[in-house]
Amino acid sequence: MQPHQTRLRVRYAETDQMGVVYYANYLVWMEVARVEYCKALGFRYKDMELEDGVLLAVAEAQCRYLYPARFDEEVIVDTRVTSANPRMVSFGYEMRLAEGARKLATAATRHIFCNREMKAVRLPAKYWTAFGIR
Amino acid sequence: MQPHQTRLRVRYAETDQMGVVYYANYLVWMEVARVEYCKALGFRYKDMELEDGVLLAVAEAQCRYLYPARFDEEVIVDTRVTSANPRMVSFGYEMRLAEGARKLATAATRHIFCNREMKAVRLPAKYWTAFGIR
Amino acid sequence: MQPHQTRLRVRYAETDQMGVVYYANYLVWMEVARVEYCKALGFRYKDMELEDGVLLAVAEAQCRYLYPARFDEEVIVDTRVTSANPRMVSFGYEMRLAEGARKLATAATRHIFCNREMKAVRLPAKYWTAFGIR
Amino acid sequence: MQPHQTRLRVRYAETDQMGVVYYANYLVWMEVARVEYCKALGFRYKDMELEDGVLLAVAEAQCRYLYPARFDEEVIVDTRVTSANPRMVSFGYEMRLAEGARKLATAATRHIFCNREMKAVRLPAKYWTAFGIR
Repeated sequence: MQPHQTRLRVRYAETDQMGVVYYANYLVWMEVARVEYCKALGFRYKDMELEDGVLLAVAEAQCRYLYPARFDEEVIVDTRVTSANPRMVSFGYEMRLAEGARKLATAATRHIFCNREMKAVRLPAKYWTAFGIR
Repeated sequence: MQPHQTRLRVRYAETDQMGVVYYANYLVWMEVARVEYCKALGFRYKDMELEDGVLLAVAEAQCRYLYPARFDEEVIVDTRVTSANPRMVSFGYEMRLAEGARKLATAATRHIFCNREMKAVRLPAKYWTAFGIR
Repeated sequence: MQPHQTRLRVRYAETDQMGVVYYANYLVWMEVARVEYCKALGFRYKDMELEDGVLLAVAEAQCRYLYPARFDEEVIVDTRVTSANPRMVSFGYEMRLAEGARKLATAATRHIFCNREMKAVRLPAKYWTAFGIR
Repeated sequence: MQPHQTRLRVRYAETDQMGVVYYANYLVWMEVARVEYCKALGFRYKDMELEDGVLLAVAEAQCRYLYPARFDEEVIVDTRVTSANPRMVSFGYEMRLAEGARKLATAATRHIFCNREMKAVRLPAKYWTAFGIR
C-alpha cells in the first residue's frame, strides 16, 4: 500500500535535558501518523472506536533511533500498512527531518483489533479494503 | 483539614531542554498527590469513579513556579482540601525539595463533581466526611 | 497587541480515561502557541535560546477549563502578549473548538527572561519591539 | 547480572481514552527503572551525565504489550543489563502487576554511550564493573 506522509513540528515539551526529543515521544508521533493515515485510507479512527467499538490495541512497538530530533524542527513521518488480516494490522514508519531529509528513525507497530473490553474481535468487513485485506 | 505528604522522584521524561522540569508536569504531580490524598482521606479515587461514577473534573488550575526542579531530585508535595461542598472541591499544594526543603511551587486546583457524561452532580453523602463537608 | 491563532489537533496520547484531554496538556498547547506567536512576532524562540542565551522561564500559569476537548478535534488557540517589560512577559490564551467555536479554556502565563543558569536577565533591546516594549 | 526491581503506580495522566495505559508510557517506566538500576549498580546516572559528560543515547527500543495496565495499579519492572561493552549497553525489562503478578509487557532497549554533543564515546573504565564489562 501507498505510504502516507504526516508532518509535525517538535514541541518544547517533547525535548529532555539531553537537548533532544525524549525517546518515548516518537511513539506519540507514530500514533499521530496512524490517525492521519486512517483518514487517508478513507475513515476516521475516532468513528471506528465510537461507532463500531473497534479499537486498535498495540501488541508490539519497536523503534530504531538513528539521529536525534530537536526542538522546533519539522519532522515527516511516512507511514504504511505492512501487513493486515481481520485479526491484526502492522504499520511501518520512517521519520526524517523536513529540512535536509536526514533520517531520524524507523519504526514498526503491530495491533490487534479489539472491543471496548479489550477482547480480540474480527475487523468488520467494511474496513477490509481500507487496510488492504482481501 | 490536615495536609497529606506525597513523595516522588523527578523522571528524565519530565525534564526539557532547559535542563529543568517542564512546567506542565507539575500538574501531573498534583494529580498524583490528589490520588494519594484521597487514600489518606479513606477512599480510593479509582473506586469513586468506577463504583459511584463520580469524577473530579478540573475547573481551574493555577501554579506559581518558584525554583526549578531537576532530574532525579526527590520532591515532596503537601496537599490539602482548601474548600469543599457537594458540588465542588478545591485543593492547595506546596511542592519542595526533600533535600534542603527549598520551596519549588505553590499551586491550587478547583474541581467539579460530575458523572461519566461530564454533567455536574452532587457528591454522594458517603464521601462528605472525607472531604470535610458537613 | 494582535492575537495570533494556532491550530492543533487533539492527539490520542493527550486523552485520559475520562475520555477527554488531560488537564496538563493544555499547558503544552499553550507552549506550542507561544512558539508560533514568537514566529508571528518576527523571531524564532529557538534562536533566542541558542543565539542569545535568553530563556523564558515560567513564573506562573493559570488555566480555567470550560468545556472538555476530545480526541481528534481541532483546537484553535488565540494567544497574545498581555504585558511585557525587559524583565518579564505575560501571555493570555483562549482555546476553542475549530468546529462550532465552543470555548474550551482561557489561560495565562507569566515568564521571566533568564539565562541558561536560570538567572534573571534583561531582555536584549533587539527583542523589545516584538514584545511591544518601548 | 542480577535483575533489579522497580515499583511504580500508574498515574491518571498515563491512561488514555481506551481506559488503559497509553503505550508510549511504558518507555517512560523503563527509563525510571534504568535510573534505579544504575543506583543499584552503585552509581547515579545523573552524576555520570553531570560529572563525566557520558550520556546513554537510546539506539533502539522494543516493547511487547501482553496485558493492559490500568490507573492506580502498582507495577513492578524487573530490569537487567543483557549485554554491555565500552561502546554500548542493552537492557531487558519485564513488567508485571504487583497484585497477582500478571505479566504486562516485556521490553528491551539498546544504548550508545555518547558525550553532550551526541558523539559516540568509550565508557570510562570506572563504570565497567557496574555494567559487567571486563
